[in-house]
Amino acid sequence: MYSFKNDYSEGAHPRILNALVESNLEQEEGYGEDRYSLKAIEFIKERMGRNDVDIHLVSGGTQTNLLAISAFLRPHEAAIAASTGHILIHETGAIEATGHKVLSIEAEDGKLTPEHVKTVLDAHTDEHMVKPKLVYISNSTEIGSIYNKTELQQLRNFCHENNLILYMDGARLGSALCSAENDLQLRDLPELVDAFYIGGTKNGALIGEALVICRDSLKEDFRFHMKQKGAMLAKGRILGVQFLELFRDNLFFELASHANKMAEKLRDELGKENIQFLTHSPSNQIFPILPNALITKLQDKYAFHIWEKVDSEHSAIRLVTSWATKEEAVKAFIADFK
Amino acid sequence: MYSFKNDYSEGAHPRILNALVESNLEQEEGYGEDRYSLKAIEFIKERMGRNDVDIHLVSGGTQTNLLAISAFLRPHEAAIAASTGHILIHETGAIEATGHKVLSIEAEDGKLTPEHVKTVLDAHTDEHMVKPKLVYISNSTEIGSIYNKTELQQLRNFCHENNLILYMDGARLGSALCSAENDLQLRDLPELVDAFYIGGTKNGALIGEALVICRDSLKEDFRFHMKQKGAMLAKGRILGVQFLELFRDNLFFELASHANKMAEKLRDELGKENIQFLTHSPSNQIFPILPNALITKLQDKYAFHIWEKVDSEHSAIRLVTSWATKEEAVKAFIADFK
Amino acid sequence: MYSFKNDYSEGAHPRILNALVESNLEQEEGYGEDRYSLKAIEFIKERMGRNDVDIHLVSGGTQTNLLAISAFLRPHEAAIAASTGHILIHETGAIEATGHKVLSIEAEDGKLTPEHVKTVLDAHTDEHMVKPKLVYISNSTEIGSIYNKTELQQLRNFCHENNLILYMDGARLGSALCSAENDLQLRDLPELVDAFYIGGTKNGALIGEALVICRDSLKEDFRFHMKQKGAMLAKGRILGVQFLELFRDNLFFELASHANKMAEKLRDELGKENIQFLTHSPSNQIFPILPNALITKLQDKYAFHIWEKVDSEHSAIRLVTSWATKEEAVKAFIADFK
Amino acid sequence: MYSFKNDYSEGAHPRILNALVESNLEQEEGYGEDRYSLKAIEFIKERMGRNDVDIHLVSGGTQTNLLAISAFLRPHEAAIAASTGHILIHETGAIEATGHKVLSIEAEDGKLTPEHVKTVLDAHTDEHMVKPKLVYISNSTEIGSIYNKTELQQLRNFCHENNLILYMDGARLGSALCSAENDLQLRDLPELVDAFYIGGTKNGALIGEALVICRDSLKEDFRFHMKQKGAMLAKGRILGVQFLELFRDNLFFELASHANKMAEKLRDELGKENIQFLTHSPSNQIFPILPNALITKLQDKYAFHIWEKVDSEHSAIRLVTSWATKEEAVKAFIADFK
Repeated sequence: MYSFKNDYSEGAHPRILNALVESNLEQEEGYGEDRYSLKAIEFIKERMGRNDVDIHLVSGGTQTNLLAISAFLRPHEAAIAASTGHILIHETGAIEATGHKVLSIEAEDGKLTPEHVKTVLDAHTDEHMVKPKLVYISNSTEIGSIYNKTELQQLRNFCHENNLILYMDGARLGSALCSAENDLQLRDLPELVDAFYIGGTKNGALIGEALVICRDSLKEDFRFHMKQKGAMLAKGRILGVQFLELFRDNLFFELASHANKMAEKLRDELGKENIQFLTHSPSNQIFPILPNALITKLQDKYAFHIWEKVDSEHSAIRLVTSWATKEEAVKAFIADFK
Repeated sequence: MYSFKNDYSEGAHPRILNALVESNLEQEEGYGEDRYSLKAIEFIKERMGRNDVDIHLVSGGTQTNLLAISAFLRPHEAAIAASTGHILIHETGAIEATGHKVLSIEAEDGKLTPEHVKTVLDAHTDEHMVKPKLVYISNSTEIGSIYNKTELQQLRNFCHENNLILYMDGARLGSALCSAENDLQLRDLPELVDAFYIGGTKNGALIGEALVICRDSLKEDFRFHMKQKGAMLAKGRILGVQFLELFRDNLFFELASHANKMAEKLRDELGKENIQFLTHSPSNQIFPILPNALITKLQDKYAFHIWEKVDSEHSAIRLVTSWATKEEAVKAFIADFK
Repeated sequence: MYSFKNDYSEGAHPRILNALVESNLEQEEGYGEDRYSLKAIEFIKERMGRNDVDIHLVSGGTQTNLLAISAFLRPHEAAIAASTGHILIHETGAIEATGHKVLSIEAEDGKLTPEHVKTVLDAHTDEHMVKPKLVYISNSTEIGSIYNKTELQQLRNFCHENNLILYMDGARLGSALCSAENDLQLRDLPELVDAFYIGGTKNGALIGEALVICRDSLKEDFRFHMKQKGAMLAKGRILGVQFLELFRDNLFFELASHANKMAEKLRDELGKENIQFLTHSPSNQIFPILPNALITKLQDKYAFHIWEKVDSEHSAIRLVTSWATKEEAVKAFIADFK
Repeated sequence: MYSFKNDYSEGAHPRILNALVESNLEQEEGYGEDRYSLKAIEFIKERMGRNDVDIHLVSGGTQTNLLAISAFLRPHEAAIAASTGHILIHETGAIEATGHKVLSIEAEDGKLTPEHVKTVLDAHTDEHMVKPKLVYISNSTEIGSIYNKTELQQLRNFCHENNLILYMDGARLGSALCSAENDLQLRDLPELVDAFYIGGTKNGALIGEALVICRDSLKEDFRFHMKQKGAMLAKGRILGVQFLELFRDNLFFELASHANKMAEKLRDELGKENIQFLTHSPSNQIFPILPNALITKLQDKYAFHIWEKVDSEHSAIRLVTSWATKEEAVKAFIADFK
């Protein structure tokens, strides 16, 4: 059984594990003040050509989202998310548990536009309703689509005109930035969003996301929030060592590129067989629509999620590739598919 | 510079790292449903001779405390902690952030007795005050003392008579259980407390605590709470692999014993020089009272916390040993001390 | 300018004010333990023929909703509401501020059915999503419709089969129970819902809602929650005196009947003129669809909410009547309309 | 049985009730936007000679405290209170329920000084602890003492130097300002504190406190918080009508003066009999220390709280007077005492 269920089925890229092994017995400061974390943060800043952002290393995506959103908002303020947004459904009410409503709006391709946000703003007119304040987007999105630079600029402009915070969930940012259709660079992001995170867990790390806070007014006292929410690891070094390895050279991007290449291969080969896809997803998640009988057969040898029923005979499945996806597995899947 | 500042200065015990390396490329289920986590939990249960407890692997101590306490209590219920209790001061209001007051009471040696708890109960008489409901204890405590079996039984009896939940923070449970003065066994704990955790981070793991829920009524839906609080790791396997290694044989206890032995050596040698200690601490944290001038000198070569001023000429320092503490370092410290 | 904007434009029914005046200088216990509150609760229980419910007097509707829902749910549990539900949009995230998500589902007439609830349950399958636990309904609803006995029984059965709490917001319960189309009695409710409130503010009181908790497991320690949320008035007597007057005889029902009669008159007369209504609302809120030009003219002499745009030439307005609505005002409105 | 238990045993001053009766049938806007509330706020501002403060009318003291503190603080920030502070013990963890720790410090006379606050600040040094941010004081205090102008100025200066918010609970502000020992005026307060409330419930109103926000940065969006916490009454007029009557002329101060005069009479007469007092309390609460046998006898005819045991033979009781306390009752108490 080979799994295309997600991009966190394996451990870490061997280079990352190796870095953990090599640094293992050095004595370091706790709670993220070790030399590895400081160095990793420096490297990421350099990569963005920016020294005026704050970077915090956090263990996981839900943790990062709840941490950032609860730190950024006042009690009566709410987040806006697309109806496919991860925080809306798949984080067990983590945002609400910190006291904030998540307002949702349908967005067919999983991406928010100024028009979407405006619709939500227009519906919230006075103090009898929450005050929409933060726009949550994911890149790549939960259904595999990605934002291009123009789209992001338009959203950013709208947010700033309306005094909104623009926050990007980058659990799969690597895959987005390495997509064949992408025109964004990591160094563009501090100009385009107020805060975002660079996902490590789904791109080769054991655990770890790097939250980048770009807007000055959101930076103050952030480490207090981390500690209060249980997000500050005693051995913070393990996040530092991993991100240092990912950003010491191009490893982060190489791993994402591999994942994308594997997805592309699946997409191309299935496409050749006239398979339709539920969404346009130029990243490491694809959603082919297959006959139910075929799905059942494929399940004998492959693990994947059945995403949704399309008609009585067909369903869309989700295939996810990662830095660890083996080319032979992709080939075998295609062969079996045929 | 050698550090006795804490028990999380190094990475993981080599056997644990090795286990991570060896399991690294296997595909596993996410979110703690991998085979390693399941196996680790089975091993811990066996070690306690109990199959009727629920065990969850969590990344850190503050995370575990806030998770358990907020899951166990209703909104108007409060925790009781000794004035030295970690949740009271050193977790940035993590418990209060989930809505619950922490009531404190002075306890000279850091240990709560039925009398302490009764004092708090007696002061909370009606609905104009919170309802004390959970008794938080640490073993070993924040000042190095440990509970013996009789003390714990008395506390447990009092709690049950008064319908209170008894919760033990076991960040340093290994050290407590391996103390020369200890008469408790891991297998005694499910009888004595309603929930507790077995600390991995401070006893040889990279990250990880194993929360054991003993009382049936506290078990329901716990994984929802984990996810909601950002405590469920996508690659939960990394917790499983580590705890499996710690409990596959006696590694967990061997590591704690080493830490204790190193502390004992320091204690004995300092004792021989007529040094007094701030607390009676038969575990891996000791608090010798030293002349300030000597402290300054020692700081040239050793890192440690100055715990508190004792008089104008003396202060108590905290020396912490761990599984990784080198015997040479201890010897060198003693030599330098002399 | 006469207002049909809402049912809380005036103060209290004169008999209620008079009762406040007459009891004014008696010395009473504070915090709802006065003789008036106790007596009022007794009278309401008698009216329902039930002595096994708990009743608490609270100052307002949002306060009551947030109090009940946060007391009834554990942190990971969520409420389900119709898309028109008051807690969903019009309470500034009061429920989310206590940590709980509100899940919504479209319900054309503002009423939830077992099918609606099932749809939500089916979409929440594991610990990565909140656990739907409480079904929030309003009677009458926010758009004037009411539940009949059969509908409520079906919903109640479904809830109990699925271990859900059924909670009814009764801000306008008086109007619902006195509707010409109603077949429910107050005494039926403890059998049909787990908790509900009897709205006083919108039916003749200055302030005050009577929360009735029917299910035993939801009763414990409720007064702690009231105090904690700022909902326990020092002079709780003012709630007691008012509810005593409302339920000493039939005043509560007489006031609601008057409100309904006034709405009925408006509905009938507008109906005769072939005016369509946005919703079927046999209670004290009606939503006639009028030409925009006419609306503008009516606004010279009458205050009301424009509810929603229907087409380029028409909008639905909301007319609300109350115990205080004057028959002359209704006649004048109709005359002006014609 | 005559009660000296508290200052909320009776209803409202007759003039206030009368104002409610007279305004009763006028149609007014809801939610505090009625003409009475606006006028009342205008009158209070005039009384302070300040137009640059924001005033909100709220139903009760705990509600006001939790509302203000949760609106003013970010999640990791904490309040500081004297060990007798009402929010610390007697509000069922209302502040903690909004996520904030309350730090306490012993203050013998119930009043905080810069030294007290400094002690707390000095103990909170980094992100592993909460950040003390708001200083909560009560005037008069929970044990009857009052702040003089110099004390308040010193505290204010310290707070501003340390970037702290100074908040005053004025549940009994009337009594404080009308104390024979007082040198503060209402118009001084906006200079001296960042926010405070003027207590109505304990000074002649049925319900109602007027929260005054003086510091600009604390004002934004406050009505959202009120709605979210269930503190916005549909018939907000009832708060407006009452505060208008209290501040239309000198009624607020006359009522407080009467309460103080009654307390003074008790204090003087008991003092003549060589009775000692637990605290120095020049306001409407006094704490005479009486022989237990005498207490028992007095309890036959008078209701009051036994405050605390002083020695095996004596206890301190609390006697509270109010605007409604009858001079005959005071005389009778003294006669019975003798």
